[in-house]
Amino acid sequence: MSERTETTQVLIIGAGPAGMLLSHLLADAGVESIVLETRSEEYVAARIRAGILEHSTVDLLRSVGLADRLEREGDEHRGIYLQWPHERHHLDFVDLVGRSVWVYGQTEVQKDLVAARGAAGQVVHYEVDDVALHDLESDRPSVTFTDADGTTVRVTATAVAGCDGSFGPSRAAVPDGVRSTWERTYPYSWLGILADVAPSTDELIYAWHPDGFALHSMRSESVSRLYLQVPNGTPVDDWSDDRIWDALASRLGHGQDGWELTPGPITDKSVLPMRSYVQAPMRHGRLFLAGDAAHIVPPTGAKGLNLAVADVALLAPALAALVRDGDARLADAYSDDALRRVWRCTHFSWWMTTMLHTGDDPFDAQLQRSQLQWVATSQAGAQGLAENYAGLPLGF
Amino acid sequence: MSERTETTQVLIIGAGPAGMLLSHLLADAGVESIVLETRSEEYVAARIRAGILEHSTVDLLRSVGLADRLEREGDEHRGIYLQWPHERHHLDFVDLVGRSVWVYGQTEVQKDLVAARGAAGQVVHYEVDDVALHDLESDRPSVTFTDADGTTVRVTATAVAGCDGSFGPSRAAVPDGVRSTWERTYPYSWLGILADVAPSTDELIYAWHPDGFALHSMRSESVSRLYLQVPNGTPVDDWSDDRIWDALASRLGHGQDGWELTPGPITDKSVLPMRSYVQAPMRHGRLFLAGDAAHIVPPTGAKGLNLAVADVALLAPALAALVRDGDARLADAYSDDALRRVWRCTHFSWWMTTMLHTGDDPFDAQLQRSQLQWVATSQAGAQGLAENYAGLPLGF
Repeated sequence: MSERTETTQVLIIGAGPAGMLLSHLLADAGVESIVLETRSEEYVAARIRAGILEHSTVDLLRSVGLADRLEREGDEHRGIYLQWPHERHHLDFVDLVGRSVWVYGQTEVQKDLVAARGAAGQVVHYEVDDVALHDLESDRPSVTFTDADGTTVRVTATAVAGCDGSFGPSRAAVPDGVRSTWERTYPYSWLGILADVAPSTDELIYAWHPDGFALHSMRSESVSRLYLQVPNGTPVDDWSDDRIWDALASRLGHGQDGWELTPGPITDKSVLPMRSYVQAPMRHGRLFLAGDAAHIVPPTGAKGLNLAVADVALLAPALAALVRDGDARLADAYSDDALRRVWRCTHFSWWMTTMLHTGDDPFDAQLQRSQLQWVATSQAGAQGLAENYAGLPLGF
Repeated sequence: MSERTETTQVLIIGAGPAGMLLSHLLADAGVESIVLETRSEEYVAARIRAGILEHSTVDLLRSVGLADRLEREGDEHRGIYLQWPHERHHLDFVDLVGRSVWVYGQTEVQKDLVAARGAAGQVVHYEVDDVALHDLESDRPSVTFTDADGTTVRVTATAVAGCDGSFGPSRAAVPDGVRSTWERTYPYSWLGILADVAPSTDELIYAWHPDGFALHSMRSESVSRLYLQVPNGTPVDDWSDDRIWDALASRLGHGQDGWELTPGPITDKSVLPMRSYVQAPMRHGRLFLAGDAAHIVPPTGAKGLNLAVADVALLAPALAALVRDGDARLADAYSDDALRRVWRCTHFSWWMTTMLHTGDDPFDAQLQRSQLQWVATSQAGAQGLAENYAGLPLGF
């Protein structure tokens, strides 16, 4: 059995947006990296994920030359609609907190990152197997894996970045006695669809309804993305296309004040469970976790991708200082610094989720209605939502 | 057995702050009332209850000549302290939303009301029994009771105001098929003490602590009021004075940044359960509910008395128009108008309560810490708390 060894400055596990952006930012700082990914390049590129970029995410992508297509094809939104039966309110984030958000799918961000890294000659090993992390507490950690050709490879690096999500080996490489974890599962899921139809709204609609939450989002001028709250364990086949459009029409208020939901061909249908998860610390020896490897948020509030970007924005300069200058100060501060934002976004995502999803308790439903009314009509309430949704400045 | 009949314009059941203030406001509008109370005058006057008056409560008392002693002896506070281990933040409501609050015990408000109503010759029947409501859906409702001398009395009125709290007969006089109720009990209680010692703080301290919530409040320059979160069902005898002061010192941060908690003789000690309760509608025929008869809030956030005052501020002009001019428009709007504020305060009280009281779930504790940090350091977060705590304008 053949074996190969390589060395690099930073070994990045995971070629999703967190890993690829980290590789890009490190290259900008003159630091070399190798990226590993268990999936194929096509699979990673095709995964349907979040679609809302915070103001600071867009700023960061702009500052490193990754926003050309985003500015051409993305759609800047001033805010969102918040609604419940018979009332729809617009929250204008630009008026409220001076920041907008952008609709630009994670799939598109991923394509831009892959193109930019490809053009720069970045080494990415796709479809690797048997990834294992070694000697994390030494100053020469290594990672072994089997590459797509079946060759066993060992890469030795100065630091390892775990950007491999909640199922990857990085998170689990932090010993049990060292890591603390916090978790919450929610008693509902999202049935999400993609539809080949122009969105029936100019900005996202978050709708509270006695039958359950609904969200009207979009991917482009001709592709809509919509969601329905469904019970956990709902088989996707329980929901015919007609049933989905009927429920969306009802929950989103078709016919109210002349607003209409236009149905169209559904091209993708899936049920997404909802979970909050945080693992700390986000650093163990020379292993640094970023994105879903350290934290999962429910999709309400669109924080997942943005939080991964914020992690990487902190991690890149920390690793650059460590591997280039031997200066560990930012690396030592990384976990605490990142976790401040992680908990802020974890709280916000939990708050948006629990405010909008209905359950069995009629008292909770009344609290939700009163809170929605307050958020939509009080300046402080609206600013609180806007500040968190449009996103805190990087480095918060 | 002797029997007596009387007539009046408004029969008020309950001589607590809601009933007595209503009687006062009605008299100001030229409307006559009779007040009934099952307890003795001394008992009602001595009940220890809330101690914080919202801005609009103070304004209302001023506008009807009931604030002379409040302004002499009460203490205006600009805000509160919000703290958790190693951090104490001041929220300045005047800076944040332009409104202050006043520390002036409900007992004192009650004394001022009794004095003012007494001077005006108000009829108050104390220590009555067998209170029963009749013909509420007619335009001549009546109330029967046995007075302190054993005489059976029937009072016929144009309207009946139920200001008799959650255990009184008014709430229960709304038929089952008509009323809806919402309720939440909390898995903790407050151990409250009164102590003959100058407060160790100039404004209230709301403290989150892993051992449980603590609150440092006060009644005067020489009397402190303090609370500790304890499990439901805690016998008051479980807590010796020493144990109470030790727990308060620990949870309130004695010794941190030079701050000291000064203990003193404890003159009253009790365990208070915590509950949210709302009954709607707040009007049934000619019966109108106000205060605790229609809603109970947990004490965190100090909304109980203020909400009763806000109800009465809406109810008095509604009843005056009804009985004086036969104009039912405000009376017809009363329940919906009052319930908007009721649900806002019910939500706020629930929010303050669940943010500050600790439980078994470590994820909840992290959410609380992140939310407290945000509320204390974000302008929008602090304004949201201040706006609700200092109180929305009457008529909200």
